[in-house]
Amino acid sequence: MKIEAVVCELFNIPLPQVLTDSTHGEMHHFSLVTVRVRCDDGSEGLGYTYTVGKTGGPSVLALLTHDVVPLLLAEDPRRIERLWEKMWWALHYVGRGGIASFAISAVDVALWDLKSRQAGEPLWRFLGGHSNRVRAYAGGIDLQLSLDELQTQTQANLDRGFRAIKMKVGRERLADDVERVAAMREFLGLDIPLMVDANMRWSVEYAIRAAQEFRNHDVYWLEEPTIPDDFEGHRRVQTEGGLAVASGENLHTIYEFQKLIEAGGAAFPEPDVSNVGGVTAWLKVARLAEAHNLPVTSHGVHDLHVHLLAAVPNDSFLEAHGFGLEAFLREPLPIEDGFATAPDRPGHGVEFDWIRLREHSAK
Amino acid sequence: MKIEAVVCELFNIPLPQVLTDSTHGEMHHFSLVTVRVRCDDGSEGLGYTYTVGKTGGPSVLALLTHDVVPLLLAEDPRRIERLWEKMWWALHYVGRGGIASFAISAVDVALWDLKSRQAGEPLWRFLGGHSNRVRAYAGGIDLQLSLDELQTQTQANLDRGFRAIKMKVGRERLADDVERVAAMREFLGLDIPLMVDANMRWSVEYAIRAAQEFRNHDVYWLEEPTIPDDFEGHRRVQTEGGLAVASGENLHTIYEFQKLIEAGGAAFPEPDVSNVGGVTAWLKVARLAEAHNLPVTSHGVHDLHVHLLAAVPNDSFLEAHGFGLEAFLREPLPIEDGFATAPDRPGHGVEFDWIRLREHSAK
Repeated sequence: MKIEAVVCELFNIPLPQVLTDSTHGEMHHFSLVTVRVRCDDGSEGLGYTYTVGKTGGPSVLALLTHDVVPLLLAEDPRRIERLWEKMWWALHYVGRGGIASFAISAVDVALWDLKSRQAGEPLWRFLGGHSNRVRAYAGGIDLQLSLDELQTQTQANLDRGFRAIKMKVGRERLADDVERVAAMREFLGLDIPLMVDANMRWSVEYAIRAAQEFRNHDVYWLEEPTIPDDFEGHRRVQTEGGLAVASGENLHTIYEFQKLIEAGGAAFPEPDVSNVGGVTAWLKVARLAEAHNLPVTSHGVHDLHVHLLAAVPNDSFLEAHGFGLEAFLREPLPIEDGFATAPDRPGHGVEFDWIRLREHSAK
Repeated sequence: MKIEAVVCELFNIPLPQVLTDSTHGEMHHFSLVTVRVRCDDGSEGLGYTYTVGKTGGPSVLALLTHDVVPLLLAEDPRRIERLWEKMWWALHYVGRGGIASFAISAVDVALWDLKSRQAGEPLWRFLGGHSNRVRAYAGGIDLQLSLDELQTQTQANLDRGFRAIKMKVGRERLADDVERVAAMREFLGLDIPLMVDANMRWSVEYAIRAAQEFRNHDVYWLEEPTIPDDFEGHRRVQTEGGLAVASGENLHTIYEFQKLIEAGGAAFPEPDVSNVGGVTAWLKVARLAEAHNLPVTSHGVHDLHVHLLAAVPNDSFLEAHGFGLEAFLREPLPIEDGFATAPDRPGHGVEFDWIRLREHSAK
């Protein structure tokens, strides 16, 4: 069994509404890069990654077409560890994270899709099958919303079936953030977990003060309080702030996660399958977390992460992302009574509406 | 004063001879990406970066043209810290290393070239001017050479004016490496420093054994004994192996260097201006090293690094690289009696022979 063709495409997809957070400012688009691996027996696998805004999309595509695809052709797609290592070392000088991690991720997801489809198994069961039901939260990207708009958006998410909510923090004044968190806690009552996400905005000292305030309002976790590079700072926010920290969407290697976890910097490690190195690397991070008595959570691409969190025993909440990819999917992931259910279709079961998608083709 | 145009180009340059090391295997080309920044007053700056083989070149170029150049236009080129931060955060989601670091580096070098040329100063004096004479070593990429060929190459390097030599290690058998190191020490006598470079090949335990052997032959440093991610492993090689470690060509942020240095993992931090984030980040690493009572060394692009090592007080050896870029330069860097002298032309003073270079244009 051999890989015969690898087709890579880039799409710039307008967001359903302009989103803002404390670091990325206004976002109008996201870039989707798709990878389809086809074998000599006609089997196929689909992988994808995305970037924020349009930034990096053409660079990911260039790396895939010029440098990654030639590594894959004529190889056995079932030997994923071998192919992963081959990509890692071929890209190493320009890799160890960044654009290369996005490219490897998209390929790796396609290989796992192909392998589990070949086995006739849904990815979640193929990978371990712990439980197909995963708690989900609505990840709001809502820093600019007024309190009224925030509550309207939250009510819409509750009506859609969510029973956990994440909101952005990181406004100019900390008092403003605290007031919004307090109002949201009152609005939600005591039974709905509320997470907050600072998108790396703060110094460690500021984040400690913020954590101390937020814990009075029963915040479930504080996400990315400071730059992702500062593992020791993360530890201080957790221990001195007295609030669990989630972090990892900007970490791109198992080694970075090892250091973050070893430092005691994250109660909720948060690898993103679309930028940490695909299913292969995501699972290694999940196992690392498990060995440290920690759960694992996710970032973005919930149609993929629902399988991964369903596969492992130490799953925490699935983030349901607000980028609007569901408008381009044949079967969007339903959320019911706070849970997402991993589909039983073979592979990850994500099928794009290619005709709609190609309206946003970048070339 | 405003940036009016930024011109980026990609070249695939054949190596003068096929090179091999323990990790990258055979290398036939390197990719050169050039960035020229032109301002409304006619002033210009030249920056460049390179990758090993052809891998990553098109991706660096795509990131520059699609995502980086628009960030620079109409900006004041003298406010380098501002532009650096702007690039860092605009690319952050796909950045924090990898391809983005190469792109930022090329731009940053161009900005420093422009700024020092505007001041009428050579870069080394503009940045601090500690001493224009820098000890240099010949960095051989010679793992596949027989002992005879290795000594012939070494004699040629001594004849060219070098008084320090680096050789590759990491052959199949450690005894083979030890024999070659011993023979080289005998060939060189006691007055010529000899460095060895394992290119990340080894486990920590293996590297400790190798270090213990090499120290009997007065090896100056052991470079990249294991994967760059393993800072604690680096520390063990130094302390248990009893041999100074050099590392850093694969680290792409000041935060990675902070962790390596804090861990006690490198006696010779080795940032590469073409992939660590340009002059701006290189200097920050050099200052970090200084504050930890450490020297700083370099990797590749010696025509740029001679200025940086000449600028700071804690300079160690300059690596003179064997990629053959000098064939495309108007004035290659001379080496005399073991020293390189930073030129007194304004800026970094590197001028390409664009006509020869364009014979290898990648588009």
